Amino acid sequence: MGTLSYSRAGVDIAGADVVKQRIARLAASTFTPGVLREIGHFGGLFAAPGDRNSYVLVSSIDSVGTKVLIAALLGHHRSIGIDLVNHCVDDILACGARPLFFLDYFAAASLAPAVLEELVEGMAEACAAAGCALIGGETAQLPGIYLPGVYDLAGCIVGAVHRDRIVDGSTIQAGDVLIGLPSSGLHTNGYSLARAALGLDGDPEEARRRLAEVPAWTDRSLGELLLEPHRSYLPVIEPLLDSRVIRGLAHITGGGLAGNVARIIPPGLQALIEAGSWPVPQIFRHIQEQGQIDAHEMYRVFNMGIGYVVVVRPEDAPRVQQLAEGWIIGSVVPAGEAEARAVVHGVS
Amino acid sequence: MGTLSYSRAGVDIAGADVVKQRIARLAASTFTPGVLREIGHFGGLFAAPGDRNSYVLVSSIDSVGTKVLIAALLGHHRSIGIDLVNHCVDDILACGARPLFFLDYFAAASLAPAVLEELVEGMAEACAAAGCALIGGETAQLPGIYLPGVYDLAGCIVGAVHRDRIVDGSTIQAGDVLIGLPSSGLHTNGYSLARAALGLDGDPEEARRRLAEVPAWTDRSLGELLLEPHRSYLPVIEPLLDSRVIRGLAHITGGGLAGNVARIIPPGLQALIEAGSWPVPQIFRHIQEQGQIDAHEMYRVFNMGIGYVVVVRPEDAPRVQQLAEGWIIGSVVPAGEAEARAVVHGVS
Repeated sequence: MGTLSYSRAGVDIAGADVVKQRIARLAASTFTPGVLREIGHFGGLFAAPGDRNSYVLVSSIDSVGTKVLIAALLGHHRSIGIDLVNHCVDDILACGARPLFFLDYFAAASLAPAVLEELVEGMAEACAAAGCALIGGETAQLPGIYLPGVYDLAGCIVGAVHRDRIVDGSTIQAGDVLIGLPSSGLHTNGYSLARAALGLDGDPEEARRRLAEVPAWTDRSLGELLLEPHRSYLPVIEPLLDSRVIRGLAHITGGGLAGNVARIIPPGLQALIEAGSWPVPQIFRHIQEQGQIDAHEMYRVFNMGIGYVVVVRPEDAPRVQQLAEGWIIGSVVPAGEAEARAVVHGVS
Repeated sequence: MGTLSYSRAGVDIAGADVVKQRIARLAASTFTPGVLREIGHFGGLFAAPGDRNSYVLVSSIDSVGTKVLIAALLGHHRSIGIDLVNHCVDDILACGARPLFFLDYFAAASLAPAVLEELVEGMAEACAAAGCALIGGETAQLPGIYLPGVYDLAGCIVGAVHRDRIVDGSTIQAGDVLIGLPSSGLHTNGYSLARAALGLDGDPEEARRRLAEVPAWTDRSLGELLLEPHRSYLPVIEPLLDSRVIRGLAHITGGGLAGNVARIIPPGLQALIEAGSWPVPQIFRHIQEQGQIDAHEMYRVFNMGIGYVVVVRPEDAPRVQQLAEGWIIGSVVPAGEAEARAVVHGVS
């Protein structure tokens, strides 16, 4: 069968990037004076209304992706609601923002009330934990758009950050240290490739049988491991926000470690991440082996055990590493303008 | 074949209502002090951050629904982008809010860059017209969730209104007048029923042939009529907001005139809407005839030519009617607490 890559599993990252650039230009044509940054950061930044208001609204919209197909196979949906909220919380947190409110969008060919209720239970649980109010949502029944028995769940979060406390990586300097925080699993990225690698994208009965298997290296079923909710980094990052110790934050989602860390590194610098400086969880090795996936492709698609990256000055690194229970996974070095802003070294 | 109703066309409104009530209770458990109203209004209300801030953020999330299937058949997508933005603009406008920013969510089985670009062109055009910045979005390729060749487009809008200027219908009194503003067509509701009625939900070639037909009562093709963009009521309502002449605003979406006007009528009152007090556009008659749809069902599913309802005092009605180029379509009368908050009279 040869090796699997992400575009062969149905998702073309390079193609998506070209379109995203065109979209960014069209979007920029709508910008009003309230817009504080161009598109491309982890959240959209907009001045909060009101005279002399020193707060900035930070927003993000996202979905859980094909992780919902695992949930649909197993009939467990609650954790998907948690995934969605935590993914969004982590996105705006990367700008230094705390959540204010959340709205969800659920769509399917037909309404399955029990599924929707489980999802909202999960969203409400994660929202409450983040101090985020679930203030609206839309339930759409769209026959002819969705395949039967599955659904999509998207959500939009709005948070706020004081104008002087925006985290955007602009103060990052050569010598700064990258601290990687452990992910709880795949989070919400790479599921199309993982499903293909693990043989979960064919006959549902066969897929359920495989999901029930308990791999030799764990006492949990593959299904449990794959449905493990996206971790919220708010509890561990929030105490650091006010101490101004943070120079940059990256949420490791689609595009992997290098792709996401690159978004916050200023020109003339490069984040050098050392593979092997943290333990890659077995689930990633398992997916790689089963799908005979190239190691570099693994690092482009999956978080490989690092869900969030905090950039700090070297003198702050030991304290932050300890507080956040992370690993020192690399550092920032000088680089030419044309060089990649982030690379993962020693992948094998 | 018998008559068509909305639930037979794939959408169960009554079932959706029960779930929405359960969701509302779960959501309420997450409410923080910033939340200003319970779920159920046209937008979610949340206090803008900042000390002594007199602004309230108003947000809404929505999608275009199965109108995208008409766009997919014809290969014209730009107007769908306009639909989505204007739908959201009209939602928060019903709370008296002006738009600040917008985020979109596009998902399909595979990425069609030209389609996505057309959609963003439409969104950018409508955002620019509304003074709304398109500050973010997500493009998701989700094989296994979406049917091939189609897509879903959802969006989230955030706007603001001064705390003293929130429009919520709470000051509506008996004797107040309902002014109906013309819709531009079906807007974004009722497309599953319309497609079934017009025989557009089967063979694509046959559907395209039917969409190209020009009905006897118009010089436009059925496809053009069905893709006519959702009208934005911001230009006509915005000048009225500051004059404080408005007591209530209702955006006529899923649920029709009675369902949406009911959302703003206080207890002990009833909005009495007189069918026949405005000209129902031919497209609705055409759908009704072709699908042999019951007249009451038509009024529950479609806007029937009224896209927005403004409630004003009787003495303000003539001026507002003239400014907004609408029709006086009914009035507010005393009613028992158990009675419907809005009814359409004389449907036949």
